[in-house]
Amino acid sequence: MGKEIATREQDYSQWYNDLVIKGQLADYSAVRGCMVIKPYGYALWENMRDVLDRKFKDTGHQNAYFPLFVPKSLFEAEEKNAEGFAKECAVVTHYRLKSDENNPGKLIVDPEAKLEEELVVRPTSEAIIWNTYKGWIQSYRDLPILVNQWANVVRWEMRTRLFLRTAEFLWQEGHTAHATKEEALVETKLMLDVYADFAENWMALPVIKGVKTVNERFAGAEETYCIEAMMQDGKALQAGTSHFLGQNFAKAFDVKFSDKENKLEYVWATSWGVSTRLIGALVMAHSDDDGLILPPRIAPIQVVIVPIYKGEEQKAQLDEKVLAIVKGLKELGISVKYDDSDNQRPGWKFAEYELKGVPVRLAIGARDLQNNVIEVARRDTKEKQSVSLDGIEQYIKNLLEEIQQNIYNRALAYRDEHITKADTWDEFVNLLDTKAGFISAHWDGSSETEDKIKELAKATIRCIPLNNPFEEGKCILSGNPSTQRVLFARAY
Amino acid sequence: MGKEIATREQDYSQWYNDLVIKGQLADYSAVRGCMVIKPYGYALWENMRDVLDRKFKDTGHQNAYFPLFVPKSLFEAEEKNAEGFAKECAVVTHYRLKSDENNPGKLIVDPEAKLEEELVVRPTSEAIIWNTYKGWIQSYRDLPILVNQWANVVRWEMRTRLFLRTAEFLWQEGHTAHATKEEALVETKLMLDVYADFAENWMALPVIKGVKTVNERFAGAEETYCIEAMMQDGKALQAGTSHFLGQNFAKAFDVKFSDKENKLEYVWATSWGVSTRLIGALVMAHSDDDGLILPPRIAPIQVVIVPIYKGEEQKAQLDEKVLAIVKGLKELGISVKYDDSDNQRPGWKFAEYELKGVPVRLAIGARDLQNNVIEVARRDTKEKQSVSLDGIEQYIKNLLEEIQQNIYNRALAYRDEHITKADTWDEFVNLLDTKAGFISAHWDGSSETEDKIKELAKATIRCIPLNNPFEEGKCILSGNPSTQRVLFARAY
Repeated sequence: MGKEIATREQDYSQWYNDLVIKGQLADYSAVRGCMVIKPYGYALWENMRDVLDRKFKDTGHQNAYFPLFVPKSLFEAEEKNAEGFAKECAVVTHYRLKSDENNPGKLIVDPEAKLEEELVVRPTSEAIIWNTYKGWIQSYRDLPILVNQWANVVRWEMRTRLFLRTAEFLWQEGHTAHATKEEALVETKLMLDVYADFAENWMALPVIKGVKTVNERFAGAEETYCIEAMMQDGKALQAGTSHFLGQNFAKAFDVKFSDKENKLEYVWATSWGVSTRLIGALVMAHSDDDGLILPPRIAPIQVVIVPIYKGEEQKAQLDEKVLAIVKGLKELGISVKYDDSDNQRPGWKFAEYELKGVPVRLAIGARDLQNNVIEVARRDTKEKQSVSLDGIEQYIKNLLEEIQQNIYNRALAYRDEHITKADTWDEFVNLLDTKAGFISAHWDGSSETEDKIKELAKATIRCIPLNNPFEEGKCILSGNPSTQRVLFARAY
Repeated sequence: MGKEIATREQDYSQWYNDLVIKGQLADYSAVRGCMVIKPYGYALWENMRDVLDRKFKDTGHQNAYFPLFVPKSLFEAEEKNAEGFAKECAVVTHYRLKSDENNPGKLIVDPEAKLEEELVVRPTSEAIIWNTYKGWIQSYRDLPILVNQWANVVRWEMRTRLFLRTAEFLWQEGHTAHATKEEALVETKLMLDVYADFAENWMALPVIKGVKTVNERFAGAEETYCIEAMMQDGKALQAGTSHFLGQNFAKAFDVKFSDKENKLEYVWATSWGVSTRLIGALVMAHSDDDGLILPPRIAPIQVVIVPIYKGEEQKAQLDEKVLAIVKGLKELGISVKYDDSDNQRPGWKFAEYELKGVPVRLAIGARDLQNNVIEVARRDTKEKQSVSLDGIEQYIKNLLEEIQQNIYNRALAYRDEHITKADTWDEFVNLLDTKAGFISAHWDGSSETEDKIKELAKATIRCIPLNNPFEEGKCILSGNPSTQRVLFARAY
C-alpha cells in the first residue's frame, strides 16, 4: 500500500537510503556529493538547531558569522590543520564567467578573471576566525570570547552518503578563546556535556563520552573529545566533537593578550561542532523496516490525526470534534497535523505517516465519535488502542513522553548488549565478523599498534571512554601491558 | 568619552562605516569584499530573521536547503538569468590542494584535481532549485510548492560596503511553483506585502511598494516588484524584491505538470528575497551622530540598566531592586541587560549603549532608590526623565512601543518631505543637485529614455509605485506623452 523500502536484513545500506529519500528528508542533487534537504528534513534540522542554540546561549555563547572563503595563505598558516584538510578542499580560482564565443548561449570561465590568491571554501573555520580574533583580543579583559556560528561547510568527499558524508553539509562550529589552559579545558568538556545531553535527552540517542587517540584527533587539536553512538548494524557513528586546541591557532595567527601582570601570552582555544550528520544517526539508530521512528521531542509533526468518514455530514461532525482536539493539543505545546485531504485513502495515509516516523497517529470515524473514543497508534511499538476522548490531550502528552523514553531505552539496551569484551586477537577478529557492535579491549597506547589493527581488522579506536575503570591487561595485538580498555568498532 | 564617529554632515559615508564598525555590528575581513558579522550585528539579524520566518510560515511556506554550488551547465540554462549574473560569479575549479614542493609548509592547488565541470558558487538559486523541482512536480496535485531557503550567496562586487554590498551576504530566497499564472501573481504580491509589513512595522522603515521598469528587473523575471526606502541622505535603497518569473525557469529546466484535464503545462514561478542589506538600511534610516538608533521591536537589547554607586553596600542595595526590575521586564517579554561590570564608569557605559542604539537606558543610584525613582533615557529623542519605580515595568513596555512608533513617524515625515515633483528637465537636474530625496516625474515608458536619464543625471527609476494616480503629462526628457509619474533617485 505504501512505498516500498528495503528491510534492514536484506540491505542495510539501501534501507537507510530508502528511509531518507522516501521519508522525505533529503534528495540527491545535480551537484556531485551535495544533497537537497527537503522541507520535512529541514524542519527536523530546525528543531534540533533550536534546542542546541538555546543550550549554547544558556551557557553564555553568542552567534556570529564569518566568511565562507579562506584565502590560501591563511588556510595554510596552522600546518597540521591545513595538512588535514588540504586533500578535500573546494577551491575558488576565478570570479567571472563570460560568453563562449564558439558556443552561443554557453558560458566559460573568464581566464582574465583569475584571482591573485585562491580562496578555499571553508572545510572548518579555525583559520579565518583566529585571523579575526587577532583584531579582537588585546587584553585579558577581552577574554573569554564565546562565539558560535551556524554555517555550511564543504569537504570534498570521494564516497558520499546522504547526511552521513556529503560534500556540503550544515553545522555549527563554536570557537572560543581563553586566558588560561584550565578555562579552555573546562569549556571543551562543558560543550561535550551539552552535546551528550542533547543526544540523549532530545535525540533519544545514548552516547559514550570519550577522548580520541592521537591518530583520530582533529587536525590541529591537542585533544579531541567526542560522543560516539551505536547504529543498529553495530557500527559506530561519531555524533559530535569538542576540541582543546591549546595555543596552536594563537601561535599560527599570532594572537596574544596582556594578562593582569601586563605580560604578553598566547591565547588558549577550543572548537566544537555537530552537523546534519546527526540526522543520519537519528535515522539509523531508531527506525525500523516500516520507516522512520522520530523521537517526539524533535519530531516536526508529533501527532497526526486521520479522519475516517463517508460523506460530507460525517466529515462535518468529525471536523468539529477533531478541531477541538487540535486546539487542545496545541495549547499543550504539541505540534499536530489534521490530515483531512481527500486525495488519499486512510490506509495510504497510515503508511505514509508511519514511513515519516510521526510518533503518534490518531484515527477517528463516526462510530468512534458515537462511542466517545479515538484510536491511538504509537509509531515506536506499533500498538493500537481505543482511548476515551475525555482528557485525550493530556493522555497524548504523557504518551509522547513515554515514547521518547521508550525509544531511548530501546537504543540503550541494544547498545549495551552490543559492547563485548575481547581479550585476545583471535577473539577480537572473531567478534568483529560474528557480532555487531563495539569491542572493549586492551591496547598498548601506541599509534603504530592502532594503525596495524586498523589495517588488519578495518576497525578503529572510537574513543577512550571518560571515567574508564583502570585495570591491568595486555594489548590484544602486541601483548604489551595496558592499563585500560578502549572501544573499537567499524565506523561510519 | 566614547568612541569618535564622523557626523553625517562631515562625511555621510564615513559616519555609516563608523556606526557599523564601532557599533559592533560588523567588521572587515581578510577576504576581499566579505565581512564578519559580529555577535551584536548577528543578534539583530537573528531577530529580523525570526520575525520574517514566522511570517513566511504563517503564509504557508516551508524551509528547505539546496546546494551551495551550481554546475555551470545548469547555471547557463536560463539565459537571461545567467547573463545577468555571469560577471560576478565565484567559480570553483579544483577540489584539492597539495604541498608545494618548492616551498615547505605551503600549499598549491593540485592541477590534477581539476573539476570536469566548473561549479558556480550560487549568486541566487533559481537554477539549482528549478532543476530540483523538475523531479518533484508531475501533476497539479504536487502544486503549489511554497519553499524558502535561508542561505549565504556570493556576488563578486568590485566596490563593496559593509552590509550594503558585500561579496558574500546572508539572505532568504523564496522559490514557489504554481499551476496558474494568476496564482503566481497573487503569491508575488503577497510576499511583497509581507516585506512591506515587516519593513514598516518591525524595522520602522516606511517603504514605497512599486514595480521595476524593464531595465531594472531581476534577470530572468517577467516582472519585479520591490519596496524602496529612503535613507537620511535622500538616496534610495531597494529593501526587498518579489519576482514573477512567468514560465521562464520551467521552460529552461523543462518542468511541466499534468493539469486536471491531463494536459501537460509549464509551471509558473515566483522568487523573492531580502538580505543582510536590510541592516544597512536600518542603520542609515534611523541613526544619528551619536550612534545607532534601533527600533525596539528588533533591537537585541531593548533596555539597559546602569547602576551608579559607591562601595559594596550601595551596590548590594541597588542589586536587590534592579534584579526585581529585570525579572519584571523579562516577564513582559522585554530583553534587558543589567550592566554592573566594574571595569568601566557609568559615563562610558552611557556613551557605549547610545552608540549601540539600545532604545531605553535606565540609570539608578542610591539617592534614586531612596526617592523610589529611576532615570529613564530614550535613545530616539535623548530625553531623560525621573520616573517612579512603581509600575516601572509597564511604563517601559509602553515607552518601547512609543519609541517604535516615533522612529517610524520620523522616518516617514523625512521621506514625505523629500519626495518632490519635477515637471521639466531643468527642474529635475536642479533638484537632484540641490535637494536630497526622490523625484516624482513623468517618463515616456521607454528603456532608451531611462538609459539616457541615467547617463545624464546618474539617477535611476526606483519604481513605478503601485496604486499610482494616473495623470496626463510629458516625459521630462523626451517630452513624449506619459500617463503617470514614476520615482527617480540616486540609489545604493
